Amino acid sequence: MSIGIFDSGIGGLTVFREVAKEFPQADIYYLGDTARVPYGNKSKETVIRYSVEAARYLTGFGIDALIVACNTASSYALETLKEMLDIPVIGVVKPGVEMALRKTKNKRVGVIGTLATIKSNSYRDLLNKRGIHVFQKPCPLFVPLVEEGIVEGEIAELVVRNYIDELVGEGIDTLILGCTHYPLLKDTIKKLYPEIEIVDSSQAIAEFLHNEDLKFNGRGSRRIFITDESESFKRLKTVLVGDIPVEKIELSEICRI
Amino acid sequence: MSIGIFDSGIGGLTVFREVAKEFPQADIYYLGDTARVPYGNKSKETVIRYSVEAARYLTGFGIDALIVACNTASSYALETLKEMLDIPVIGVVKPGVEMALRKTKNKRVGVIGTLATIKSNSYRDLLNKRGIHVFQKPCPLFVPLVEEGIVEGEIAELVVRNYIDELVGEGIDTLILGCTHYPLLKDTIKKLYPEIEIVDSSQAIAEFLHNEDLKFNGRGSRRIFITDESESFKRLKTVLVGDIPVEKIELSEICRI
Repeated sequence: MSIGIFDSGIGGLTVFREVAKEFPQADIYYLGDTARVPYGNKSKETVIRYSVEAARYLTGFGIDALIVACNTASSYALETLKEMLDIPVIGVVKPGVEMALRKTKNKRVGVIGTLATIKSNSYRDLLNKRGIHVFQKPCPLFVPLVEEGIVEGEIAELVVRNYIDELVGEGIDTLILGCTHYPLLKDTIKKLYPEIEIVDSSQAIAEFLHNEDLKFNGRGSRRIFITDESESFKRLKTVLVGDIPVEKIELSEICRI
Repeated sequence: MSIGIFDSGIGGLTVFREVAKEFPQADIYYLGDTARVPYGNKSKETVIRYSVEAARYLTGFGIDALIVACNTASSYALETLKEMLDIPVIGVVKPGVEMALRKTKNKRVGVIGTLATIKSNSYRDLLNKRGIHVFQKPCPLFVPLVEEGIVEGEIAELVVRNYIDELVGEGIDTLILGCTHYPLLKDTIKKLYPEIEIVDSSQAIAEFLHNEDLKFNGRGSRRIFITDESESFKRLKTVLVGDIPVEKIELSEICRI
């Protein structure tokens, strides 16, 4: 059995890494749409269109389940993908919510993400239904900071405080990192706010899959596809997944005419 | 006669504004590829492909000249576009170089831009030929800062100093803002380095066109096309071009199959 994972770029490799660790025998196909990254500042319509193209590419490999690692795509395109496909489609929002519910004690949870993820209210709506008070904040500078490799030091700390001080001021005890890039800033966030519990999508989804009791018996093969070989991809790829070979593809080949 | 202007996003509206002011009678068509912005961290191959698609769209209006407002596209795709089209194709690099040559006294010029623009050495090669000593620095955080609206204050100043202190330390007397977004940070740069002469692509290209003695006699009509109606577009559009109506189009409709 095999799993497809897709993300707007390379952030989802944090999910790839955790899933690969949790299910060593599964055949895993990863697609990062690096030619059109980021999704987080694009409209709902465009995010759905790109997500459908990515999903179609991965289903071509006969995958048995699709993980939407991108929070923006999970927030905007999950329903469309579920209607379109006849395999389980798993977003990162629900697993993140489940993990936050277990961690929070005072029922005040912060959510940070891209502008699109926050505007969709995907996390807030699910958490509100479970009686949680939610404080949200889009952090559009976090993705470029991470892609630039500025994950600690004066600039990183100032930008982190620029967004998160306000949430901490609201008395949250748990913070959901609602974007696959953000775990790379986790050390700086922990240093500035050691008392806050952090929910990281990649760990949340690996835990979620484990609890679903899915069986992935394959040959443990790994394939990584990207739509552009960008500099930040080259820089972060080795850190995240080592020497797995990467194949470049074009999604516009399957565009609608 | 009519002019087409294309950019990876909305930064090129600074060029649109200056050209519209300089040539009030010209019919001007602007295309911002906001669905795939930014180009500056993508590979040469992908930047060329996107630029060709944008140019094809604009030439469909029978334009008499094409301005490539995006520095990344000017650096990577200008030759391809010149070969492909039988109208004048004008990039921003040469006009910026001409203006810098007039401004510098000590022949030490700094160039800042996206990673792609700097890697292409497009500015450096032209300036070197004219006997100028060039100091280059990619500034990947500037575009997201501008799109976030953080153009002044503590974070903006710290990020500007993070990149530009080093160039000023090399004794430059002139700095080329080699990206259409950067003019929006000009006030902060001027405040931190009042002694440095600044070259702004939008002014440089308007001056360049003026010197070319081109005649654009049209009805003074203006059309703006974008590929995605993003939040940052909505925020900056009014500031840059007022109430000109905007039309959303899809470039993937003309993709190669």
